[in-house]
Amino acid sequence: MSADIDVHRHPERAVHDRDVANSILDQSLIAHVAFTTDGITFNIPMTFARIGNSIFFHSSKHGRFYNVLQSGSSVCVDVTILDGVVLAKSAYNTSMNYRSVMIFGNMRDVADYDMKYAISEALAEKMVPGRWNDCRHPSEDEIRITGFLELPLDQMSVKVNTHGPSDKKMDEMLPHWSGIIAFKTAMSTIPHDAVAELPDYIAEHIATDGKNT
Amino acid sequence: MSADIDVHRHPERAVHDRDVANSILDQSLIAHVAFTTDGITFNIPMTFARIGNSIFFHSSKHGRFYNVLQSGSSVCVDVTILDGVVLAKSAYNTSMNYRSVMIFGNMRDVADYDMKYAISEALAEKMVPGRWNDCRHPSEDEIRITGFLELPLDQMSVKVNTHGPSDKKMDEMLPHWSGIIAFKTAMSTIPHDAVAELPDYIAEHIATDGKNT
Repeated sequence: MSADIDVHRHPERAVHDRDVANSILDQSLIAHVAFTTDGITFNIPMTFARIGNSIFFHSSKHGRFYNVLQSGSSVCVDVTILDGVVLAKSAYNTSMNYRSVMIFGNMRDVADYDMKYAISEALAEKMVPGRWNDCRHPSEDEIRITGFLELPLDQMSVKVNTHGPSDKKMDEMLPHWSGIIAFKTAMSTIPHDAVAELPDYIAEHIATDGKNT
Repeated sequence: MSADIDVHRHPERAVHDRDVANSILDQSLIAHVAFTTDGITFNIPMTFARIGNSIFFHSSKHGRFYNVLQSGSSVCVDVTILDGVVLAKSAYNTSMNYRSVMIFGNMRDVADYDMKYAISEALAEKMVPGRWNDCRHPSEDEIRITGFLELPLDQMSVKVNTHGPSDKKMDEMLPHWSGIIAFKTAMSTIPHDAVAELPDYIAEHIATDGKNT
């Protein structure tokens, strides 16, 4: 089995580069976790964080899927960041720019307390870098009732498409606008109470250019 | 089988409203399509467009998954728009705001030529409303070599989370900032050639506030 989807048709999109994979995984807040149980395939959006060569998920231990996943369920996890729409002069050649990582593997339950704590930190830091030092850390009880899952990044495929439009020769001089509509995530804050001023680490985070979630 | 994930734990998130589902499906450019073939579960990001009570996909007929999907494969398709990060004062109560549709069903191949043409139009209009009138339409040959797939919206679950932070009583007066970091998609254009000025329908589209892809 190959995880390199369409690699034969689009070899230029199959970028085998762990650094690129890591940058996609570190930037995106949502992974789609697909798995099959009792003959039914599910596809669940979950937040996650990477530490080293694994990504980690958390869930209530009472969550419907925690027991399925923690039993070593095989999964296919996709993380895709959409960077833009590529408008060619023909509808047929219209496409998208994206960065995508697809991971195949088996989830495993995390038992070690210190590791659970480290995952909690990584998940908080993923929301906003700097957040871990500005929140109440999880209690032992909160760690105990939370399930933590690890997916090793052993078998993965990376695809990056950053092209401009590519039209057939016969279409190139058509009078239609062609080009890229590029996407960025713009962030703003909505405070919940007046207990604290907006901290610098949040102000800096939302001002950062170039994030697509 | 119920498609209403976690409905017992979070009944407030299970919003049964076809209009909400349609608005999510019409706004998001990417669906994650999960299916199982030969015992392996895959999870593929694909663009799509809704017409009435179905969503439609297209693919090269030579694509690796087209043959699997067009044979009536059962799928679980998730479309999720991430609206923001909800920072509670405790790491434990930190969450996300999102709008999500999960659809269970079976893909079916579209045979009718006029329907294929209508799907091509819907896909072009989804990229930018107004685009269909400003591009070269597909030729008969382009339609012939493209596979079109339909997924009826018969069995779906909608979840919308739009909450502010909710902390435990004991945490409420902690000195940490709490609130929402809200996401919007900001768009800009990168022209490919100088054949055409930026058309009004694209300028209006990218100026529209409130899009999250």
